[in-house]
Amino acid sequence: MEVFFLGTNASTPHKYRFLPSIVVRRKGKLFMFDCGEGAQYRFLRSGLGVNKDMKIFITHMHGDHYFGLPGLIQTLALLGRTKPLYIFGPKTLGDVLENFLEKTGIKVSYPLHFAPVEEGTIVNEKEYSIKAFLVSHTITNFAYVIEEKNRPGRFSREKAEKLGVPRGRLWKKLQQGYPVKTPTGRIVKPEDVLGPPREGIKIVYTGDTRFSEKIIEHSHKADILIHDSTFEDKLKEDAIDSGHSTASEAAETARRAQVRFLFLFHYSSRYSEDLVNLLREAREIFHRTFLSVDGMNVEIRKPESNKIILLFKKLKY
Amino acid sequence: MEVFFLGTNASTPHKYRFLPSIVVRRKGKLFMFDCGEGAQYRFLRSGLGVNKDMKIFITHMHGDHYFGLPGLIQTLALLGRTKPLYIFGPKTLGDVLENFLEKTGIKVSYPLHFAPVEEGTIVNEKEYSIKAFLVSHTITNFAYVIEEKNRPGRFSREKAEKLGVPRGRLWKKLQQGYPVKTPTGRIVKPEDVLGPPREGIKIVYTGDTRFSEKIIEHSHKADILIHDSTFEDKLKEDAIDSGHSTASEAAETARRAQVRFLFLFHYSSRYSEDLVNLLREAREIFHRTFLSVDGMNVEIRKPESNKIILLFKKLKY
Repeated sequence: MEVFFLGTNASTPHKYRFLPSIVVRRKGKLFMFDCGEGAQYRFLRSGLGVNKDMKIFITHMHGDHYFGLPGLIQTLALLGRTKPLYIFGPKTLGDVLENFLEKTGIKVSYPLHFAPVEEGTIVNEKEYSIKAFLVSHTITNFAYVIEEKNRPGRFSREKAEKLGVPRGRLWKKLQQGYPVKTPTGRIVKPEDVLGPPREGIKIVYTGDTRFSEKIIEHSHKADILIHDSTFEDKLKEDAIDSGHSTASEAAETARRAQVRFLFLFHYSSRYSEDLVNLLREAREIFHRTFLSVDGMNVEIRKPESNKIILLFKKLKY
Repeated sequence: MEVFFLGTNASTPHKYRFLPSIVVRRKGKLFMFDCGEGAQYRFLRSGLGVNKDMKIFITHMHGDHYFGLPGLIQTLALLGRTKPLYIFGPKTLGDVLENFLEKTGIKVSYPLHFAPVEEGTIVNEKEYSIKAFLVSHTITNFAYVIEEKNRPGRFSREKAEKLGVPRGRLWKKLQQGYPVKTPTGRIVKPEDVLGPPREGIKIVYTGDTRFSEKIIEHSHKADILIHDSTFEDKLKEDAIDSGHSTASEAAETARRAQVRFLFLFHYSSRYSEDLVNLLREAREIFHRTFLSVDGMNVEIRKPESNKIILLFKKLKY
């Protein structure tokens, strides 16, 4: 899976940072989380493709998290999208979108579907699922978990051959998790020829939130946690007042959830070079913390359950 | 007066060009023409100030020309604007904005006024006026003219003294255009002590349009014409089909209107380095043509009626 950070700032734009939007790409499918103003600029610059399978998930109805939707919807139409686009978000987003489309008379060339979100599993596919859960902000905010399902362990040809299972249909059955009978009448169970199940990748995106026990629970052993980090410690009062988190609180959440990596996200516009203070404060609590940056593109590979590789690619802009 | 080009592209974003938005600054007052998505980013980058006297004029209801409004309205509120903001545009824009504000529950900290535009003078101040006129696009599109009123000519102290007019109240009357009587009973007329009237600066912004005789008429002797130049000559059919102009048509308009300078604007996303073809084609017809560019900031000075100075400042981004 890859994560593209299209915009990483909070509320109002910073000179070098756009408003929140993240895209996760998995086997050519796109999952956009939040769509702040200007997301379409960054989406095109990132070369993500206008006619991919795509779902958009909006965390909450503060404008900085979804004012990029109208432009993105229109641009995808103008650039010839034909595949359906699925948008998930709080119920009121559906009204706003419907009304908006009606009033502006935008012609959308592709099927556009909206689904109101409630807590629980909202997408359940063979290889992955997406779950929503409520966190603690000034208004309803859904955090999202995208999680690959565990795959069976690696199949050992050697072991299969040694146990007398002929190549072909029986190998396939074992790989799918069923026991088989060899031509000599021997029963071979999947665990005889398969390594330990391979864990999928799990990514959590909080949107806007105060420190929340629920995030710790839902982020348990996540590979990547992308967490509201609006303020540094000395502005904790501001964080409390505005329903946001400090970088330290994000780190504390990451530590207690035992996540693999934490990406700080959603920074107050007051920070420029001094953004590094947030990183420093977070790393004192949770060392495997990174600052997300507009244009950052990280590939996450998990060759084995206990091994995770992050590939930081060249900044896209 | 200064012109800031915040975004210069057409319909969908180009890698380096945002969607249409222009700001004219005159004596600290701001006049924004169109507000494409991302205008707030460029507005802040240009250091235009969040609490200035400001009016926004939208040419038409295609999303690329106004999807930046919600974000700008919200950001100005978040950054503490208190002065009223006036928005002018097609009647339906009022409905869209009203509905939008109601549905999103955005709290606007300052008075927000919308005025539907009809052809004619829509702003008439002591020193300048703003006029709207309909051009020829696929939907209703208002072009706008911002024009300074002529000022009386330069006052000659020397001549006044020579004619025996004592400094003070009588000078002021002459400067205001009234004749005066000197202590020795001599009648001195304003034209005896004033140079020729000083012409104001006139800027025309077309928004989206086909070649139109009305633009020639309304741009007569304008100092700056900012004209739709979506295509090069060989795509004239596309221009006709989509209600846009070629750069040559913009130049032909500039030539026949006898404007001082033409700025090409609103480019198809297909052009990158080859944008210079549009400039070449336009200059064959009208030599005093420039390509507008995102981040371009041009100051226009008119020290005398027949003298105009353009100061191209460092690109803002």
